[in-house]
Amino acid sequence: MKIDGQPFRSIWLAEDGWSVEIIDQTLLPHEFRIRLLQSCDDAAEAISVMRVRGAPLIGATAAYGVALAMRADASDGALEQALAGLLETRPTAVNLRWALSLMKAELGGLVPGQRCAAAYRLAAEICDEDVQTNSRIGEHGLQLLRERSQARQGEQIHILTHCNAGWLATVDWGTALAPIYRAHDEGIALHVWVDETRPRNQGAALTAWELAAHGIPHDLIVDNAGGHLMQKGLVDICITGTDRTARNGDVCNKIGTYLKALAAADN
Amino acid sequence: MKIDGQPFRSIWLAEDGWSVEIIDQTLLPHEFRIRLLQSCDDAAEAISVMRVRGAPLIGATAAYGVALAMRADASDGALEQALAGLLETRPTAVNLRWALSLMKAELGGLVPGQRCAAAYRLAAEICDEDVQTNSRIGEHGLQLLRERSQARQGEQIHILTHCNAGWLATVDWGTALAPIYRAHDEGIALHVWVDETRPRNQGAALTAWELAAHGIPHDLIVDNAGGHLMQKGLVDICITGTDRTARNGDVCNKIGTYLKALAAADN
Repeated sequence: MKIDGQPFRSIWLAEDGWSVEIIDQTLLPHEFRIRLLQSCDDAAEAISVMRVRGAPLIGATAAYGVALAMRADASDGALEQALAGLLETRPTAVNLRWALSLMKAELGGLVPGQRCAAAYRLAAEICDEDVQTNSRIGEHGLQLLRERSQARQGEQIHILTHCNAGWLATVDWGTALAPIYRAHDEGIALHVWVDETRPRNQGAALTAWELAAHGIPHDLIVDNAGGHLMQKGLVDICITGTDRTARNGDVCNKIGTYLKALAAADN
Repeated sequence: MKIDGQPFRSIWLAEDGWSVEIIDQTLLPHEFRIRLLQSCDDAAEAISVMRVRGAPLIGATAAYGVALAMRADASDGALEQALAGLLETRPTAVNLRWALSLMKAELGGLVPGQRCAAAYRLAAEICDEDVQTNSRIGEHGLQLLRERSQARQGEQIHILTHCNAGWLATVDWGTALAPIYRAHDEGIALHVWVDETRPRNQGAALTAWELAAHGIPHDLIVDNAGGHLMQKGLVDICITGTDRTARNGDVCNKIGTYLKALAAADN
C-alpha cells in the first residue's frame, strides 16, 4: 500500500541485492524509519522485539533471516542453527514455523553451494505468495463492502476493526484491511473505526497510521466504544484478523475480538 | 472506607466548622492530597475539573457549594447565582440537579438570616443519606456474594467491575463496590478484576487505588480482557454502576458497560 502516495511493502530486498529492509514498526506512529537487516541475528532481533509483527510478516522475515544466514555460511550446522534460532523468536506465530519448515525442506535437500541462492528465491516466493493471498482476501471482502455500499445507495459506509491486520502485519494489502483498501481504491465511500486495542495499542499505533498514510478516512476510538457505535447504527460491518480459524468457524484473535463479535451479533 | 487503616469519607466539614475538604481525585493514584473548599467558586471548580466526580459526590459537593455561598452572602440574588453557577458545572449528573433542587426548595422558603445554617444542615443530611443509601446497596449485594462464596465452598470469588462506582464516587461505601467492601469486611474471600476504563482510566486511577487503600485483592486489566476471563470461568459476578436505570431494567452507564453485559449474558 501507499505511504504518502509512494507504494511500499513491509519487507523488501535492498538495492545491494542481498540486504533486507523493513519498516521499524516499534517507532510508529511517531517516526517512519527503514531498518537494514544484514544477518540472521538482525532478522531474529527484529522479530523478537516486534520491529516486525503480524504472522505473515514474521514468516517472511524469518525466511529472509535464513537466506542471510546461508549467505554467511551455508553449512549444515549453520542451517540448523539459523532455523533453531529463528524458531525461538516468537512462541505463537504459526507462519513462523510454517516458513521455517518450507526453508528446511527446500534447503536441506541441496548441497551448501546451492543454498544461498535458493533461500533468497524461496523467501521472495513466500513474500509474493503472501501478497497474492491477501490480494484475494481483498477481492472476496470487496464484494461484501460493495453490496453494503449499494444498499446504502453510495453513502459512506462504516467499518470497525480491531488490532492491526493491515498491510503492516503482512507483506502487503493486509488481511482484515485488504477489502478496505480494495474498496477505497475502487472509489467506494468508506470510513473506518479503529479500535485503540489495549494493551499494546496496535490500532492506535499501526492501523490508524497506515490508513492515514494511504489516505483512508478513519477515527481512532477506545475499545469500549464499539458496542455503543453499533447500537447507534454507526457500524455497517466489523472486520478483524484471525490468528487461527477452526473448522467450525471459531476464531482465535487479539484479546477483545470476542467482545466485538458479541456486540456485532447483538446488533 | 479506609485509607491505610484510617476511615475516610470523600467530602467532609473541616475542623474550622465551615470549610469543606475533599480528596483531589485528579491527582490519584499518584498523589493523595486533601483540598480545601472555602467558596462556592471553589466547589464549582472542583466539580468542573473533576477533582470530585461520581454523581452522588457531585451532588454532595454542590450542596456544600450552596452552603459556602450562603455563608458569604445569603441574599436572594446570591442564592440564585450560586444555584445557576453550580448547575452549569456538569451537564449530565442527575444528582447535581437533584441536590440543587433540594437546596432551592429549602432555602427559598427561608429569610436570608436563616439560610446559612440551614444550608450546612441540609448538605450534611444529603451526605449522610448518601452513605445510608450506599450502605444498604452493600447489604443487598452482600447476599449475592455470600451465596456465590458458599456455592464455591469459601474459595475466593472473582468480581469484575467497570469504571469507578466506588466510595470515591459517592460520600462513602460506593454503589457497585459497596457489596464488595461489605463482603470483604465480613471475611468473604474475594478478588476484583478492575477494568482500566478507557478513555479516562477511572478503573486504573481510582478503583484500583481505593481497593488497594482498603486492602482488597485486585488486578487491573485492560477493557478488552473481561470477555476472555469470563470464558475461562474466572469471573463469578460482574458489578457496575448505573447512571440511570429505566423501569424495564435498561441501564445507562460508562461506555463499555454494554460489552461486559453481553459477555456476562453469553457466559
